[in-house]
Amino acid sequence: MDKLIIIKIGGNIIDDENKLLLFLKNFAAIDTHKILVHGGGKLATRLAGQMNTPQQLVDGRRITDAETLKIVTMVYAGYINKNIVAQLQANGCNAIGLTGADGNAILAHKRVHPTMDYGFVGDVDAVHASLLTTLLGQGLCPVLSPITHDKKGQLLNTNADTIAQETAKALGSFYDTELIYSFEKNGVLLDIDNENSVIKKLNLAYYRELKNEGKIFAGMIPKLDNAFSALQNGVKKVIIGKAEEIQLLLSGDKGTSISHD
Amino acid sequence: MDKLIIIKIGGNIIDDENKLLLFLKNFAAIDTHKILVHGGGKLATRLAGQMNTPQQLVDGRRITDAETLKIVTMVYAGYINKNIVAQLQANGCNAIGLTGADGNAILAHKRVHPTMDYGFVGDVDAVHASLLTTLLGQGLCPVLSPITHDKKGQLLNTNADTIAQETAKALGSFYDTELIYSFEKNGVLLDIDNENSVIKKLNLAYYRELKNEGKIFAGMIPKLDNAFSALQNGVKKVIIGKAEEIQLLLSGDKGTSISHD
Repeated sequence: MDKLIIIKIGGNIIDDENKLLLFLKNFAAIDTHKILVHGGGKLATRLAGQMNTPQQLVDGRRITDAETLKIVTMVYAGYINKNIVAQLQANGCNAIGLTGADGNAILAHKRVHPTMDYGFVGDVDAVHASLLTTLLGQGLCPVLSPITHDKKGQLLNTNADTIAQETAKALGSFYDTELIYSFEKNGVLLDIDNENSVIKKLNLAYYRELKNEGKIFAGMIPKLDNAFSALQNGVKKVIIGKAEEIQLLLSGDKGTSISHD
Repeated sequence: MDKLIIIKIGGNIIDDENKLLLFLKNFAAIDTHKILVHGGGKLATRLAGQMNTPQQLVDGRRITDAETLKIVTMVYAGYINKNIVAQLQANGCNAIGLTGADGNAILAHKRVHPTMDYGFVGDVDAVHASLLTTLLGQGLCPVLSPITHDKKGQLLNTNADTIAQETAKALGSFYDTELIYSFEKNGVLLDIDNENSVIKKLNLAYYRELKNEGKIFAGMIPKLDNAFSALQNGVKKVIIGKAEEIQLLLSGDKGTSISHD
């Protein structure tokens, strides 16, 4: 099977133009099938301020009312996605930007919650592999923005980590798939206050051991649970680390590498 | 050769939600290969107002400074494009939204003008047919927004009529291509004040005759020159009329049909 690398980048890179340009240059140079998944950044919040749309956050999650959906559709699917695509094209990478609505790539439904109305937030039902495999087969590099749809005409704001994970699972039977979550730290840390305490390799047994000993800090647990869920669903390897060091993450010299063995 | 229908819709439809939804329903039902090209609408101007970005118009053309480019990228490539795609998906049409940067579909350069700086306005160099034929071959319906790129990392604001025309020319040797320009009038009128004076059929000889007699009003001449240019470059037929009457335009019962004979 061909190798496929799926990289998720978050707001910390997107909001820093120089870091983003350097990351995209390095990403373009990766010489395998690849998919980029991007989150949002501060621009959506800034634009909401300019448009006098108050932003409601509950447990750190943005409540997506109709006006906020309009803003994130403009910023994520428009401004951020198309600028990333244009920069990748300039670096010789044949990128194509997509939301989940495009080619019905990612089907979702509006979140159902017993007590909370998250608004137009989408939970993923299915990533349709056939469009993505067709594009990859043509030498194209899909760039996925965190907007999906319900196939009833409704766009939905969707977590980019989830999109990356579900895309990796859907493509795991077609490619040797590696999933890279980039964030602001060097990797999974044994000591949250020490950037040099990166756990180089993590398998399920070691993860359970560390969790039992209370050595994995709470914020990391959902990310790692997702990583092991991806491994159980056909993904070969998950790497967590800094987007600025993408080559070193891929070579195994930096970051935390999570795998079965 | 398979038939391909390329339809360009403008602001008058995009700004009217009910008209747009009805148009998209009718468009989705067209049972051939098809491409939709959309322009902008009043939303970009409204958003510029909210963001306190003054809009400069010269001869009816928006000057695209950096802030305006950001706005039109958000509105055209994000909000308008993705909402159209989601609605088409809801109507069973497997739409995929693209800018010229996506898959390097449309290459352009920043307009060069001896006395005027139009800002980030793009003139089209090439429409790359291979991506579009691949997508059409997969049963997908490309939805093109009027944003292109220069393959050096710069997005460019580009006239939607031009995108429709250049796309039709590029695909004319692969498909029996018909190009439909929709606008707010019933078709090309013999008497600009009489909506019932639609010229049903127009060929080059008749067009020259009418032009010599001063019977074609000035605003229509560039549109018609473009139509005949498309016909000379492999496009089979150009139809001009109202988007609300798309079926009647396609059946030849309404609008102006422009062809060689």
